[in-house]
Amino acid sequence: MKLTILIHCPDSVGIISAVTNFIHVKGGNIVYLDQHVDKEAGVFFMRLESEFEQSLNVDGLTKEFEGNLALPYKMAWSIHQLGVKARMAIFVSKYKHCLYDLLSRYDSGELAVEIPFILSNHADLENIAKQFNVPFYHIPISKKNRNEAEAQQLDLLKKHRVDFIVLARYMQIVSSKLIDVYTNKIINIHHSFLPAFAGAKPYHAAFKRGVKIIGATSHYVTAELDAGPIIEQDVTTVSHAHSIADFITKGRDLEKIVLSRAVKLHLQRKTMVYNNKTVIFT
Amino acid sequence: MKLTILIHCPDSVGIISAVTNFIHVKGGNIVYLDQHVDKEAGVFFMRLESEFEQSLNVDGLTKEFEGNLALPYKMAWSIHQLGVKARMAIFVSKYKHCLYDLLSRYDSGELAVEIPFILSNHADLENIAKQFNVPFYHIPISKKNRNEAEAQQLDLLKKHRVDFIVLARYMQIVSSKLIDVYTNKIINIHHSFLPAFAGAKPYHAAFKRGVKIIGATSHYVTAELDAGPIIEQDVTTVSHAHSIADFITKGRDLEKIVLSRAVKLHLQRKTMVYNNKTVIFT
Amino acid sequence: MKLTILIHCPDSVGIISAVTNFIHVKGGNIVYLDQHVDKEAGVFFMRLESEFEQSLNVDGLTKEFEGNLALPYKMAWSIHQLGVKARMAIFVSKYKHCLYDLLSRYDSGELAVEIPFILSNHADLENIAKQFNVPFYHIPISKKNRNEAEAQQLDLLKKHRVDFIVLARYMQIVSSKLIDVYTNKIINIHHSFLPAFAGAKPYHAAFKRGVKIIGATSHYVTAELDAGPIIEQDVTTVSHAHSIADFITKGRDLEKIVLSRAVKLHLQRKTMVYNNKTVIFT
Amino acid sequence: MKLTILIHCPDSVGIISAVTNFIHVKGGNIVYLDQHVDKEAGVFFMRLESEFEQSLNVDGLTKEFEGNLALPYKMAWSIHQLGVKARMAIFVSKYKHCLYDLLSRYDSGELAVEIPFILSNHADLENIAKQFNVPFYHIPISKKNRNEAEAQQLDLLKKHRVDFIVLARYMQIVSSKLIDVYTNKIINIHHSFLPAFAGAKPYHAAFKRGVKIIGATSHYVTAELDAGPIIEQDVTTVSHAHSIADFITKGRDLEKIVLSRAVKLHLQRKTMVYNNKTVIFT
Repeated sequence: MKLTILIHCPDSVGIISAVTNFIHVKGGNIVYLDQHVDKEAGVFFMRLESEFEQSLNVDGLTKEFEGNLALPYKMAWSIHQLGVKARMAIFVSKYKHCLYDLLSRYDSGELAVEIPFILSNHADLENIAKQFNVPFYHIPISKKNRNEAEAQQLDLLKKHRVDFIVLARYMQIVSSKLIDVYTNKIINIHHSFLPAFAGAKPYHAAFKRGVKIIGATSHYVTAELDAGPIIEQDVTTVSHAHSIADFITKGRDLEKIVLSRAVKLHLQRKTMVYNNKTVIFT
Repeated sequence: MKLTILIHCPDSVGIISAVTNFIHVKGGNIVYLDQHVDKEAGVFFMRLESEFEQSLNVDGLTKEFEGNLALPYKMAWSIHQLGVKARMAIFVSKYKHCLYDLLSRYDSGELAVEIPFILSNHADLENIAKQFNVPFYHIPISKKNRNEAEAQQLDLLKKHRVDFIVLARYMQIVSSKLIDVYTNKIINIHHSFLPAFAGAKPYHAAFKRGVKIIGATSHYVTAELDAGPIIEQDVTTVSHAHSIADFITKGRDLEKIVLSRAVKLHLQRKTMVYNNKTVIFT
Repeated sequence: MKLTILIHCPDSVGIISAVTNFIHVKGGNIVYLDQHVDKEAGVFFMRLESEFEQSLNVDGLTKEFEGNLALPYKMAWSIHQLGVKARMAIFVSKYKHCLYDLLSRYDSGELAVEIPFILSNHADLENIAKQFNVPFYHIPISKKNRNEAEAQQLDLLKKHRVDFIVLARYMQIVSSKLIDVYTNKIINIHHSFLPAFAGAKPYHAAFKRGVKIIGATSHYVTAELDAGPIIEQDVTTVSHAHSIADFITKGRDLEKIVLSRAVKLHLQRKTMVYNNKTVIFT
Repeated sequence: MKLTILIHCPDSVGIISAVTNFIHVKGGNIVYLDQHVDKEAGVFFMRLESEFEQSLNVDGLTKEFEGNLALPYKMAWSIHQLGVKARMAIFVSKYKHCLYDLLSRYDSGELAVEIPFILSNHADLENIAKQFNVPFYHIPISKKNRNEAEAQQLDLLKKHRVDFIVLARYMQIVSSKLIDVYTNKIINIHHSFLPAFAGAKPYHAAFKRGVKIIGATSHYVTAELDAGPIIEQDVTTVSHAHSIADFITKGRDLEKIVLSRAVKLHLQRKTMVYNNKTVIFT
């Protein structure tokens, strides 16, 4: 059995020694350990993978960890058993590229997830969902029905026991109702090199400013638009010879690659959030 | 003899044909031609290099070009003779890396310029100027003496017939007096990926925002701070494991490389400015 | 009507002037012109796009171009009318990522091509072809039937009037029979930064060598394996922490992006081949 | 006091726990820990930084570590006290860019080393050494005097207690005599993206092959030319429009940046060598 443990807590002396000793005594072999100290904030972060030869009583281990380590060191922590597939919902609107990219990775087994459904405020991409045999829900959103629509979304998410949500160029603001339930569990792709060009039409803004490099940013969604903890960014060069249409086409490749990298990091439990920033373990 | 011609004018039919024909008739061989049309603005840009076997009367050519082409097509244009070294002043404060980088390129002949002087508001880098046998002027700047100091700067620039100015991490705002005289001839390096993190302490701001990529931007100086036409940008990856000090160290390498690239593009007459953006010919 | 003209010929004085004048006299407006001189080889290259307001007699223009320009300047040249979709065959084996990427771009209209068929030596990817409603031919290849299989391939290509072929991780050597018919019209993606790691299992070789960067290369297929003219390359960083499986996963993203860029450059007539190298117009 | 410990040994259960516990018991606080397991080779690697409040008996600690941990786990290991400046010799020939870059970093305090001397087989760069007040030795090398010259080099290195050597575009083969004494302690910069274009004139070879990206590689010197463990690599894009001279100029920027990064990684004890590959800790 393979367990991944994520920890953050106030920095103090002896944490690594205490945790690794605990694993060792329980018969576990540590196959990966990475830690980080945010010196300004005085916070310690650790990610640890360990293998246990015999079938382990995870509940018992968890309880002991809680009492012996988590409480005395004031840890925020989580433990994850490898091999249990996370359940990922995809929200889209009309753009195809990120959806196709995620689904082709899902189809080829590169993304080890369950996809209980794809949800959209438009019907346009239903065919793609069908192509890949994934259920598709069309919930239109207008000023009038927003509250109702969000209630429907939450019902679906609950009913399908969704673990996290990927906004694959979903062109609607996500309300705090969803964010509160899925804190640090909604992954968005923004089509600019944040914090430059937050908000609408970033490629147009980048073109107007005459930048020589454009980017894409994947981040966890928070209440403030395009201001959540950044998971992954990438860029590509542009020149005066590129039109806005060229920016958009080049940008699509960035968007889909950056989003899929962020989804994978999340899936592999390699992300931790603190102070609106991420620690990304390698 | 080798001439470089830069043109921009309202877009219309037949410009390339008219210009290339003019050069051909005068006995010139076109060894490089690149053009660009800004369709939104309706502006045509061209850069052309041509070789003339016999010694040419440049004044005569210029006059004819003016009458036959520039006037009818309403061109803004300039003609440059290869081999005449431009005169570049360097403004610095206390940081060494960009200054060392420029001077070592100058020393090895990579930058084909004259450097009549280095100017600083601090005395710290005088030794480096001495190392490379370049005159150094120390003109301190305070709130009180700003006007006077700027007058001194302008005197020096005039006296030394300076063609363009490089701000190699010069930590003072350049006033409109200088900008008016050296429009699109003052090259700055800003230590962020503009338009993100304009203004002071961009590495601190980037660290706080938790970006995964930092950058540097070289641009022509305009009245609005860090908002001038961008010449060149580059980026490098960072992670949670990097401190602000690491950002600064990594950033220094970006700054010096990006600045020197921009200086070379300017020197080679490969930059044109329009609508606060640049056309950069390759 | 919009025409793209590609030219290469021995370098001499006055070519640009002659060609642009020809277009101008015929009533064309040049909207793009880029040229290049290979000084070592003494060869001139040009790509030119021009718009003609009235419907033009292309055959007449072609004839005149031939007589007045192509013959005297000894040009190798071609003329292409915009808006005629090229016919692209895709060859695959068992890997899905490049196929999915090409087909999703085709589906969204980003790749303006006809895809008469997908051909494979295995039946595995037939489902994907079906998903996108593209005919699929399964032609197994073994040592015994190679000649016969290649004859079948050529029949299919001829019957479907295929303009160019994309090898989307096709794991068979393409014989000279095909290459002779489709010279500089077969685009391959090789999963290394050529010329490093040509041949089989490049990710294994890269891992063994301990490189810190891996790459992918798209090139035209020639008789010598992985040695054809390079169209496009890109790279990504790796570290000791990455396994061969990680190299392969990271590499897949490079492969699909680099291949699609090369296909687009080919489609837009932005590639010219000379001396086993490419000129790639921007 | 701050200690950095580097370990590699056969992989087995409990190493991390044993080592961290040892540090903890000795009153040390672990401020950094990174580990890696090469699963194919079955080798465990660890880098650990720890702070000790009181002045520590390092010899005593070393002895205990040896007995309690190194011997039972069959560790190859080393312990380094922070703040002791390493002594770095620079070997050059005629190229200035890497030398200037290293010396300007040294001058600004970015490279925390002692530079007892610069050695060259040519006299050309003596002036630069003088500029930075570093002793310069000119030892010409020819076929006749090679043995003698190498003996002189070794004498100098010994006399000045040099810890490691940087070949800053040193255009001579380093003999096994030096390599044996300075195993994994001679850092070279090669001006290509190894393993592509090993040996002489890589920019010429890259130009001939028509690559779209060129690179530079820093590696430890081994008996086989350009085949040692790679520490750092980087690349930049090129096009058909670039001449060999352009490749060389662009490449110089890569070379100096890549070399200085490698030197810093070595200085910070972040490199370990195994099976002709490096583990580079972050």
